[in-house]
Amino acid sequence: MTPETTRLLERMLEGESLSLSRVISLVENESSQVPEIMKRIAPRLGKAHCIGVTGPSGAGKSTLVDRLTILMRRQRLKVGIIAVDPTSPFTGGAVLGDRIRMQQHYLDSGVFIRSMATRGSMGGLPQTAGAVIKLLDAAGNDVILVETVGVGQGEVDIMEKTDTVLVTLCPESGDAIQTMKAGLLEIADIFVVNKADHPGADSFVRDIQAMLHLREPSWWDIPVVVTEAINDVGIEELHEQIQLHRQALCETHQLSQRRQLQRKSDFMKTIEQKLTHRLIKAIEQDGHLSSYVERVEKGELDPYSAADEILRSGKLLADWLRR
Amino acid sequence: MTPETTRLLERMLEGESLSLSRVISLVENESSQVPEIMKRIAPRLGKAHCIGVTGPSGAGKSTLVDRLTILMRRQRLKVGIIAVDPTSPFTGGAVLGDRIRMQQHYLDSGVFIRSMATRGSMGGLPQTAGAVIKLLDAAGNDVILVETVGVGQGEVDIMEKTDTVLVTLCPESGDAIQTMKAGLLEIADIFVVNKADHPGADSFVRDIQAMLHLREPSWWDIPVVVTEAINDVGIEELHEQIQLHRQALCETHQLSQRRQLQRKSDFMKTIEQKLTHRLIKAIEQDGHLSSYVERVEKGELDPYSAADEILRSGKLLADWLRR
Repeated sequence: MTPETTRLLERMLEGESLSLSRVISLVENESSQVPEIMKRIAPRLGKAHCIGVTGPSGAGKSTLVDRLTILMRRQRLKVGIIAVDPTSPFTGGAVLGDRIRMQQHYLDSGVFIRSMATRGSMGGLPQTAGAVIKLLDAAGNDVILVETVGVGQGEVDIMEKTDTVLVTLCPESGDAIQTMKAGLLEIADIFVVNKADHPGADSFVRDIQAMLHLREPSWWDIPVVVTEAINDVGIEELHEQIQLHRQALCETHQLSQRRQLQRKSDFMKTIEQKLTHRLIKAIEQDGHLSSYVERVEKGELDPYSAADEILRSGKLLADWLRR
Repeated sequence: MTPETTRLLERMLEGESLSLSRVISLVENESSQVPEIMKRIAPRLGKAHCIGVTGPSGAGKSTLVDRLTILMRRQRLKVGIIAVDPTSPFTGGAVLGDRIRMQQHYLDSGVFIRSMATRGSMGGLPQTAGAVIKLLDAAGNDVILVETVGVGQGEVDIMEKTDTVLVTLCPESGDAIQTMKAGLLEIADIFVVNKADHPGADSFVRDIQAMLHLREPSWWDIPVVVTEAINDVGIEELHEQIQLHRQALCETHQLSQRRQLQRKSDFMKTIEQKLTHRLIKAIEQDGHLSSYVERVEKGELDPYSAADEILRSGKLLADWLRR
């Protein structure tokens, strides 16, 4: 790690926003210093309560995050916000219109806001977002709000890195079957039916409750909270439910178990990534290995036989993995 | 490979449907014989034209697949259909209502239909679907139609394994921005606006065309085909565009390049998977390695330092990778 990054990290751990931003950029750009950074912040992790907010576009997620932030700031909690934005494949820019209403918080030093674009990080997004959550945790935030549009597997994976998942819907979100198809029911800890003043809200809430009754009994009964975020209705009840979930997570030792699993998974993923990295490097540099790739590309050797042959020669494998 | 599987494969390659079904099940259940199966069929690949059909639920994908199948059967083409169905997280069953209208084809020996459920195969689904496409190809199908609901990254990844992607929308699919957000524009080779008799169809088509004009010029101009699948309107024009795309793929050598990349990626993925598999086995069996996992789980050692330590001991690594 460069001395500059060391100083950056120190200032970040003291709660300095600009340094936090710059460390996040290092992580997003896959700097070679990332493992060292993650190693340094590891002892500082686990204090923040991380809340995921997902659901289809138009459900009012940003307004909800805004109102929750106002409420938490009244309690003098430090709030970090990560907004995962889909980017347009044609213009390359993020679809950031919704963020505009968050701008009042940009002036508040107790709120840190970061947008992450999905473009160009298809597979890696959940892991990058997971690392950014850790940075916000280490930087001393009490609450971290992670907002994603719940369409992709990547976004679902991000939600798995949070402690409490709010699935936000509105009466216009489409019928219950469609929600089910999108895989959102599976990840919800709390359902929020926002825009409750819109027509059809009552029957929509009943449909969700009916579906929830099909679940097996569990340590946590998923509540359905009805809100009108834009009118500040239901936000306190939602906040209460979030705290009840956090409490239940602690009392049932779910939280410590989840963190254990997370650490094990980080460990395995890191080894896998490093092995794969060495593999790619070896194939680029080693004539013997790259001749295999060539024959596979040309169709002279099928991919599976080629993989077998390489893995059978344990000596060769050991040689290039050691590099 | 067991003698039974060898016979099964032989019958499958002769075009026997029941054997094909049983080999697909082996692949879905991740039988240890899969690499050997893929190796055996490798020389038989590359004949079929694989067409992906994706888009939001309710756009009429199944009807479209049904009508395309009827048209292709009139030309005496052998058709394989893979329907990737999201499953309900609560009931565990697939949401198969749409499939009912496909049932006429179940009596036609020139059509092979297979449903694949997304449940329990989150990460692995695209690769399993990729393998099933190959099986259908090797079994002598002229055309393979792959239908998915375009919501998840997994489904998008499946589309990357097809030659021609139809993104199917209808005037009710929501506005253009939402389509863009779902990442569907990025993968389309042909846009199909189905239910063209519904209100708002004309302006919907214009919106898509306007967005397409923002694209960089390319070897292929994405056409927007207007259909009413249920009334058999526009299906022939759609089929024509599919053939034009296939032709363009061949003439620009895109097809052979894509197949080359596919083979290389299969090769790398196979090595990665096998390395990871060995890693997991080693951690279970090797006391020294599993002590690392324990310390990581307890939080005594951070995941990144642990990974570093394991990878630094090249000797150890080589030892267990050779097993």
